[in-house]
This record gives sequence, structure tokens and C-alpha cells, in this order.
Amino acid sequence: MKQRVSLITLGVNDLGVARQFYETLGWKTGAEPGDDVVFFQAGDMVLALWDRTRLAEDSCVEDGGGWGGTTLALNFGSTEEVDEILEEARAAGAKIGRGPERTFWGGYSGVFIDPDGHPWEIAHNPHWTITDDGGIRL
Amino acid sequence: MKQRVSLITLGVNDLGVARQFYETLGWKTGAEPGDDVVFFQAGDMVLALWDRTRLAEDSCVEDGGGWGGTTLALNFGSTEEVDEILEEARAAGAKIGRGPERTFWGGYSGVFIDPDGHPWEIAHNPHWTITDDGGIRL
Repeated sequence: MKQRVSLITLGVNDLGVARQFYETLGWKTGAEPGDDVVFFQAGDMVLALWDRTRLAEDSCVEDGGGWGGTTLALNFGSTEEVDEILEEARAAGAKIGRGPERTFWGGYSGVFIDPDGHPWEIAHNPHWTITDDGGIRL
Repeated sequence: MKQRVSLITLGVNDLGVARQFYETLGWKTGAEPGDDVVFFQAGDMVLALWDRTRLAEDSCVEDGGGWGGTTLALNFGSTEEVDEILEEARAAGAKIGRGPERTFWGGYSGVFIDPDGHPWEIAHNPHWTITDDGGIRL
């Protein structure tokens, strides 16, 4: 199995609210206003927003109703960018879980929670390389 | 906020079991045998395995105990590859949730559930482009 992820789908309760949140953070989609799924090109993969009940059915899982063991992170080249993005997320309506702060692994990060409870760590990790187009190399 | 995901962390109950599952599927990590987190380079992002309890604390969320609204997918260029990967996942100990089968969106896919309950859709989507190095373009 190739060592990749093609698509991350986040289950949402109100697609309009979720879409507006990510668009407020600057993300662009080609989805039409009435589409029932919203795809965002994210580097060489795709992030989708879709109805959480339908996603659970399609994924053949029972919905635990809260967080379920998956956290996303977005890395930046400086602590100042981490500060800025967390402020943007707060202004867009996210709950700030923690930080920004120094972390136990020698970096700097904070966590915001999106309108559907999906956590995003916004991080500066001095041990990882950010490529010219924004990708990550271990 | 840049339109990317740098890192997906999957919370796991037994890191050795989870690591062995992904390694059996052919994934390579530079992690040492005793490391408490396992990173896999996945295209221009990273997928990590980490203790689920610690991930919940670090993500500032309550653990709902089951699935929590996030599903990953991995796309291939043919239905035959989808069949093969699902068989590999089954042989590695995954539960098969459904398929492989034709989907309502005009593709072909199946779902496997990893040892920690994380679902992966293995898909052929004729509407999307797979780049030479395995990435996805909408």
C-alpha cells in the first residue's frame, strides 16, 4: 500500500457553518454553493467536509459522538506565524484549546478546535523541514 | 492559513501493534524500536502513530471512545489495485467494513478498519487525477 494519504474527510454537522469557517481562514474550494460535499486541494492531497452521519455510514463505523483519535496539524516556519494563525482561528470562531506555548518536544504550538470539534495543532517544529511550496520533510 | 495539512496523528492503544500493521502494509519509518511515536513520511505530509490518551490530552479534547468524525482515504488508478490493497489489509489483520464495490459517486471502493478503529477508504475515483508521484489533483 503506497505510503500516502489521498483524502481526509471531516464529518460536520452543518456544512454551511464548517465551509464558512475554513473559507474565513482563507481556504478556497471549487464547490458550488449547494454542493453536499466541499473539497479543498491541500498540497498533493484533498481535505473534504461532509455530513458526519453519512460519513459514519460510509465508513462502516459507529459514531462515538465526540473526538475519535485523529488530530490534524499544520506547521509553520516561525513562532510568529503560529501566533498569527491561532489569532485568525479565534477570530473565525474557533475555540482555542491551548497555547500558543513552548511544547515538551522542543517546538512551539497551540491547538484550536473547529466548529465540529476537530482539533488542529498549529505548530513550529524546528526539527522538520518545510519545503518551498509548504510541504513537510522529516 | 495555508491550505494544507502537515501532519495527521492517529491515536493508538498499542503502538507496537499499530506500527506492525502499517509496516506489514509496506510503510517505512525511521523510528527506533523503542520510540513512543512513529512517523511515516506520506507524500509531502506526515502520518504519525501516538498513544491515544496522550493525543487526546495534547489536543485538548474529551475522547468519545470510538470513531470521531474523521476518515482517511487512499486512491489508486484502477479497480484492480483497490481489490489488491483490501486483500493486503485483510491479510494484515484489518477488518473489512465494506466492498470492494461500485460507489454512489461513480467510483469503486472498499473500507478497511485498522487495529485501532480508524477507517480507510481504498478508492478508485475516475474523476480525480493521480500525479506521477502518487499525489491527488482535483
